Amino acid sequence: MQANPQLDKEGKLQHLLSIEGLPAPVLTQILDTAASFVGVTEREVKKVPLLRGKAIFNLFFEPSTRTRTTFEIAAKRLSADVVNLNISTSSQTKGESLLDTIDNLSAMHADMFIVRHAESGAPYLIARHLRPGIHVINAGDGRHAHPTQALLDMYTIRHYKKEFRDLRVAIVGDLLHSRVARSQVHALSILGVPEIRVVAPKTLLPAQVERLGVHVFHDMAEGLRDVDVVLMLRLQNERMQGALLPSAQEYFKYYGLTPDKLARARPDAIVMHPGPMNRGVEIDSAVADGPQSVILPQVTFGIAVRMAVMSILAGSSPPAAND
Amino acid sequence: MQANPQLDKEGKLQHLLSIEGLPAPVLTQILDTAASFVGVTEREVKKVPLLRGKAIFNLFFEPSTRTRTTFEIAAKRLSADVVNLNISTSSQTKGESLLDTIDNLSAMHADMFIVRHAESGAPYLIARHLRPGIHVINAGDGRHAHPTQALLDMYTIRHYKKEFRDLRVAIVGDLLHSRVARSQVHALSILGVPEIRVVAPKTLLPAQVERLGVHVFHDMAEGLRDVDVVLMLRLQNERMQGALLPSAQEYFKYYGLTPDKLARARPDAIVMHPGPMNRGVEIDSAVADGPQSVILPQVTFGIAVRMAVMSILAGSSPPAAND
Amino acid sequence: MQANPQLDKEGKLQHLLSIEGLPAPVLTQILDTAASFVGVTEREVKKVPLLRGKAIFNLFFEPSTRTRTTFEIAAKRLSADVVNLNISTSSQTKGESLLDTIDNLSAMHADMFIVRHAESGAPYLIARHLRPGIHVINAGDGRHAHPTQALLDMYTIRHYKKEFRDLRVAIVGDLLHSRVARSQVHALSILGVPEIRVVAPKTLLPAQVERLGVHVFHDMAEGLRDVDVVLMLRLQNERMQGALLPSAQEYFKYYGLTPDKLARARPDAIVMHPGPMNRGVEIDSAVADGPQSVILPQVTFGIAVRMAVMSILAGSSPPAAND
Repeated sequence: MQANPQLDKEGKLQHLLSIEGLPAPVLTQILDTAASFVGVTEREVKKVPLLRGKAIFNLFFEPSTRTRTTFEIAAKRLSADVVNLNISTSSQTKGESLLDTIDNLSAMHADMFIVRHAESGAPYLIARHLRPGIHVINAGDGRHAHPTQALLDMYTIRHYKKEFRDLRVAIVGDLLHSRVARSQVHALSILGVPEIRVVAPKTLLPAQVERLGVHVFHDMAEGLRDVDVVLMLRLQNERMQGALLPSAQEYFKYYGLTPDKLARARPDAIVMHPGPMNRGVEIDSAVADGPQSVILPQVTFGIAVRMAVMSILAGSSPPAAND
Repeated sequence: MQANPQLDKEGKLQHLLSIEGLPAPVLTQILDTAASFVGVTEREVKKVPLLRGKAIFNLFFEPSTRTRTTFEIAAKRLSADVVNLNISTSSQTKGESLLDTIDNLSAMHADMFIVRHAESGAPYLIARHLRPGIHVINAGDGRHAHPTQALLDMYTIRHYKKEFRDLRVAIVGDLLHSRVARSQVHALSILGVPEIRVVAPKTLLPAQVERLGVHVFHDMAEGLRDVDVVLMLRLQNERMQGALLPSAQEYFKYYGLTPDKLARARPDAIVMHPGPMNRGVEIDSAVADGPQSVILPQVTFGIAVRMAVMSILAGSSPPAAND
Repeated sequence: MQANPQLDKEGKLQHLLSIEGLPAPVLTQILDTAASFVGVTEREVKKVPLLRGKAIFNLFFEPSTRTRTTFEIAAKRLSADVVNLNISTSSQTKGESLLDTIDNLSAMHADMFIVRHAESGAPYLIARHLRPGIHVINAGDGRHAHPTQALLDMYTIRHYKKEFRDLRVAIVGDLLHSRVARSQVHALSILGVPEIRVVAPKTLLPAQVERLGVHVFHDMAEGLRDVDVVLMLRLQNERMQGALLPSAQEYFKYYGLTPDKLARARPDAIVMHPGPMNRGVEIDSAVADGPQSVILPQVTFGIAVRMAVMSILAGSSPPAAND
């Protein structure tokens, strides 16, 4: 890829496309801003007028009620106007190209696009095409990146562990197909986590994953020993029918997070999962609902993190205005 | 069923799941509150700020544009933020369980769930699972209950007949499959209607329906004699293809409400229907559009009744706040 | 058709169903009002409170993400509450008639319906059925009309050409199936354009099209000679598979707008297209993205034009109120 289109010349965030290539202070600014929104979301009136009159388009080329909802709620709490577009069902079937769609929505004075797309790189293509002052947030592209998920994970880790600099973190599961894992590895490295482990069967690891600076484990008991944070990944159902895995039962036996396996981690280790969980496949309900699970706080922090990203991006728009 | 989860220890309404088990003063409070909203909905600016910043989720596990729309409009008139989720198409196909979905949405600081589900009891399951301060409204569950429909029917009856205590009310049609009828019978009894009749062929009546305190008629001319209110039920299309009924024509002949049959009722009797109507099946257009029909006022009152339920529930949330 | 139901006795616009039959001052009032909204849409806070508390229903019986979105954005910028209803998927499958659906939504105190329907005349049927004070905007009905598209085209022409009275305008493409073209011809005539040309193969022209007062050309080089404005039409994909056209390539050769063909027009001619474009079928990318294209400004003006129509209609509602 060429020069990072996420930052302008002064280093201000213009788009959030990927964690890769973002400087640590940008990540920290997002986490700090999110902290200020955690309070808002617990108030009786959960709205702030920061993005009043802004038009935010949820452009989902791949269906995802869950992620779309988190962005919709975050935008509404900022008082923005949100328009949900499920593009697969209309314009695209009329043969309109992706960039023509974007040009049209931009001509309607869109301020921000939240984009989910099955093809890696689609949000970059859009961001490069837009004129300054319109922003893109990648809500998941192919197997490439899911930066807001990684950011909410970092928020959650910082919330419970305070500092990144002494942590041992394990990412467990299907790394091969996971855009979440890829974004997590980058975020953990940038924020200074000294030891990042990946735990998976060989068939579910990307080639040369060690190059990312991670330690590879195929045995889960080994991989979880003394870790502070366990980041579980979702096992896509379609993987279980293919040649990569013998069966869900077999997978659970070796890579499902049970209380026994979790006992190898530090006693105060936290367990995270991006959801939706496959209980009994990659995680046991005793762990998912247990005292070390911070899976639901992740969701709560996720709203605040998305509010933070949106408000930082909107604040960087060129016209003078009220910021 | 166990103790009624709809009321807290002080008897305040926490959820609206079913009419059954609610004390008369709670029903009356809802109807009285709705009366105050009927005016709002006729104003030039039809909004009140009562639920500003509240997040209300329309969780429709069964499609229903019509009912979903009434709740969406009611919520918007209260200035709430509404998120529509058609769950069948996304998370559930990813295998996430109902309660995991609810946990996730609760973690996003949902204030209220409007739930429609094909399985009886699903809204109870959800209500029991939630922490205090988050509320559920049942928008129809299986064959069990549809309490807001019954409440808007009661509002309509009270509007036109002033008192419940001297009325003779007939419910006509497919009681066997009707969650509406079940809720109507409970509401009419609780509010003190002395004579409740049900009129239907044997094949469309629940077993031992008399236990509910109703009088059973198989002949419509008999059943409508001298009634003050006729509550028609919708005949589901799928019933007409099954073994329960000979044909739509045959059904109309015996149980369709025509001017002739309506002439047996009191001259000032009102005719109601929950919609959508099958004209020429359970009701003749001459009646549906005739002077005794209050079918469209039902819809109007339905918005006010839903606003009332939402605002009463929101007002009962534990944290101090601005109420 | 009978008397124009679009205007009340004082000649005020009550519904926007068709351009046909509207007096020039009404069109001009819409364009002038739109001009005042163009500024709003470029402000930092793009909202005005003109329609606060009004309930606007997007009733799309035919799917169209694009057009639905423009109306949704326009309504939100006027601070209205918008409810999107995709009717094909729910009530209609339950057998509820069109007018019963409308009666129901009206009973919920709808203020305005935006209607797209596959059958010509459906918006008229709805408008005639409604009580005064509820308004209909036709967002495209069958092959009949698409008046807001024609109005935004007129706005765009006036923006670039200032006056209509000396213009030569060509409409190119599939006029036979185009509701856009029909509305454009009426609008151009009413606003006083002296020379309107249509350019198409014989198979894509309506019978007796000359009766509309247009000049017919089958040769594009001839048809574009010295024109000031080129209005391209979209070629529906389904036409290309039928007997009317040999192939997309062949069509492009004769009727696709290329720089060569455009060179026949006046040097300052502008090129317009209602979108979505079929690049390489009816228009070459070199033209679509070239200096004479005003296709994206059309989209921008389209929001302002829709805001104008909505606010004019809402202002004409009978009850005293705040207008």
